[in-house]
Amino acid sequence: MYDILKDLVVVEGASFVAGPTCALYLAQFGAEVIRFDQIGGGPDYNRWPLAPNGASFYWEGLNKAKKSVAIDLGRPEGRELAQRLAASTGLFVTNYPVDGFLSYERLKALREDLILVRIMGWADGKPAVDYTVNAAVGVPLMTGPEDAVGPVNHVLAAWDLLTGAYAAFSLLAAERARQADGKGREVRLPLSDIAMASVGHLGQIAEVAIGGRDRPRIGNNLFGAFGRDFAAKSGERLMVVAITGRQWRNLIEVLGLTAQIAALETELGVSFAADEGLRFTWRDRLNPLFEAAFAQRTLSELSPLLDGAGVTYGGYQTLKAAVASDARLATNLTEIDHPSGHRYPTPDAVAGISSETRKPPVAAPRLGQHTDEVLAERLGLSSAEIARLHDQGLVASA
Amino acid sequence: MYDILKDLVVVEGASFVAGPTCALYLAQFGAEVIRFDQIGGGPDYNRWPLAPNGASFYWEGLNKAKKSVAIDLGRPEGRELAQRLAASTGLFVTNYPVDGFLSYERLKALREDLILVRIMGWADGKPAVDYTVNAAVGVPLMTGPEDAVGPVNHVLAAWDLLTGAYAAFSLLAAERARQADGKGREVRLPLSDIAMASVGHLGQIAEVAIGGRDRPRIGNNLFGAFGRDFAAKSGERLMVVAITGRQWRNLIEVLGLTAQIAALETELGVSFAADEGLRFTWRDRLNPLFEAAFAQRTLSELSPLLDGAGVTYGGYQTLKAAVASDARLATNLTEIDHPSGHRYPTPDAVAGISSETRKPPVAAPRLGQHTDEVLAERLGLSSAEIARLHDQGLVASA
Repeated sequence: MYDILKDLVVVEGASFVAGPTCALYLAQFGAEVIRFDQIGGGPDYNRWPLAPNGASFYWEGLNKAKKSVAIDLGRPEGRELAQRLAASTGLFVTNYPVDGFLSYERLKALREDLILVRIMGWADGKPAVDYTVNAAVGVPLMTGPEDAVGPVNHVLAAWDLLTGAYAAFSLLAAERARQADGKGREVRLPLSDIAMASVGHLGQIAEVAIGGRDRPRIGNNLFGAFGRDFAAKSGERLMVVAITGRQWRNLIEVLGLTAQIAALETELGVSFAADEGLRFTWRDRLNPLFEAAFAQRTLSELSPLLDGAGVTYGGYQTLKAAVASDARLATNLTEIDHPSGHRYPTPDAVAGISSETRKPPVAAPRLGQHTDEVLAERLGLSSAEIARLHDQGLVASA
Repeated sequence: MYDILKDLVVVEGASFVAGPTCALYLAQFGAEVIRFDQIGGGPDYNRWPLAPNGASFYWEGLNKAKKSVAIDLGRPEGRELAQRLAASTGLFVTNYPVDGFLSYERLKALREDLILVRIMGWADGKPAVDYTVNAAVGVPLMTGPEDAVGPVNHVLAAWDLLTGAYAAFSLLAAERARQADGKGREVRLPLSDIAMASVGHLGQIAEVAIGGRDRPRIGNNLFGAFGRDFAAKSGERLMVVAITGRQWRNLIEVLGLTAQIAALETELGVSFAADEGLRFTWRDRLNPLFEAAFAQRTLSELSPLLDGAGVTYGGYQTLKAAVASDARLATNLTEIDHPSGHRYPTPDAVAGISSETRKPPVAAPRLGQHTDEVLAERLGLSSAEIARLHDQGLVASA
């Protein structure tokens, strides 16, 4: 936890991954984040993975360091309360529909300079989730073994995560512009545009539009250079990548493949060191040489060789093994207690910022933990008014 | 292209995906971004996919709307020039090593209030790439068909992309803090911490640390709720997701499965509508019912039913088909000319920002296109000094 954004107060009315990660990133940099939820929890309150007692590890992971307000959003008075809260601090993140009760027009009427960052599915407002957007941009037909039939979904909600980070960036950009011109803005971020822009930025739209062909499945090979997983003699599989000419020359030297590959270059009339793409083009000739070289050596023999060659490489392991025993992955984890009742390694803001004092990560709130405090502080409600809202069942506390 | 960040000037000394996308996002919001490269191109200048003439679609996709300066970084005088440039505007994005010639300490000596965002592999400074970090956090052992053997890499460099967006967010956060306190900062962003934090935010660290078991491969099923790909009678595969109770009840009703599923609920003593997780637990009993229901209907029969049910769903298609004919994915694409000589649909900033004038995306520069202009404007060099640098081969123009 840093405090470099400590004077920002952001309201979040969102569920699932993109909106909540956006606000989480802001919170872990020091912004005060107030999340409101339906009393009893919204659609993401019971998402897996779950603790043995049924609490959602997912919900408490995504809502760390936030305040929680519980409102009955099913009734007009509750929705009006949510609207007032959404507008109250001037910064609102949501994935509610564009034209619903949390539309920009409605909230702008309450606060002219509101900045609203809205996560969407499709750009026209129709619903979509990470998995359907991914299906639409073709990634599942490129993923998986070369002989796979049908789509292979990714298990990481990559578009959701990317949208969350881009949303945090967009919010700060719009807030920066507001400092200069005083203007509020709605920033709409469709998952579909995030996905299409990303494949475009990576050259893949040009690849199909100009090249005219879809990229086929290439298994675990790195597209356009040398990279693949190989099994060591001891059985472990390693991902190995050599992109620069220096990495390539070093790699084949430490593996004792220089002569064999020189012979292959002569046969084919190519230079693999000079053109990284040829290493991909001729992978069916090259990979068997590397398979044999790796299979002759144990991991403990390979590691110093690969380190010496300056290539990037690394073993595959399960997440359990990573959490249990990989110190390289524990640099940003701290054991803290969570609302589920469990204590476990917990990630903080990713950035390591020089000269900044860093506090440990803060756990998620209990649902409704800050209802009264926020209603008083942000909406200026008196104790009597807050009590009346409780009596009417319009709000709830933890 | 927006201009909401128009008064920021950012220098980029980076390659591959994370650093370049960070600066691309800034540029498409209006920041002036000056990228420097080795004369003739750095390690990412020839990355695939390539145009027929050998130009990199990848490079020109990731460097849109930037200025380009070409320097001989292999010589001390060139490295000194790069150092001065990196410090010149007070905002620098890089993936160069922490302790090399572009270390924070060296650059801070040139400009005390410098903000430096540094993309790293491992937190300790050792090299890593997306694919090796992904192997270390266990995702490739969860990806792919349930009967897959060995790791299945993702083909989308998800950690790179996420790091790029988080870097853009971090840069604006640090710049905002500097407005208040005048202080420069180095922000270090290891890919490994990005990956581990993300799986932690999603509850997966708790899942293995408290639950004690790695998540097995689950094919194309959505973890913890109802979601999978199904084939329509007409052969097309659809990804279908139902998370809320309402979506679930609607889905089984429009597919005519209410009675069959009620019978299954009675047999098992469960309520699938009340508990999304049970739909996942009992997927081997439920999925065959859905497979049969989808297989009886063509896509044109299914679409209105699924729309009516309010579930999220979508067909799989290749990227070529997406680019050629899916208007939903073209909302943020504009045909422009690129340095490769080709004209193709090009993504702009993803955000749709209300009340902002938007200009079309701007293509990447030619390598070294802005060398002279930037040396004069940012380093205050005279024409004679710039000519001398050219004569010595220390800089080059397009």
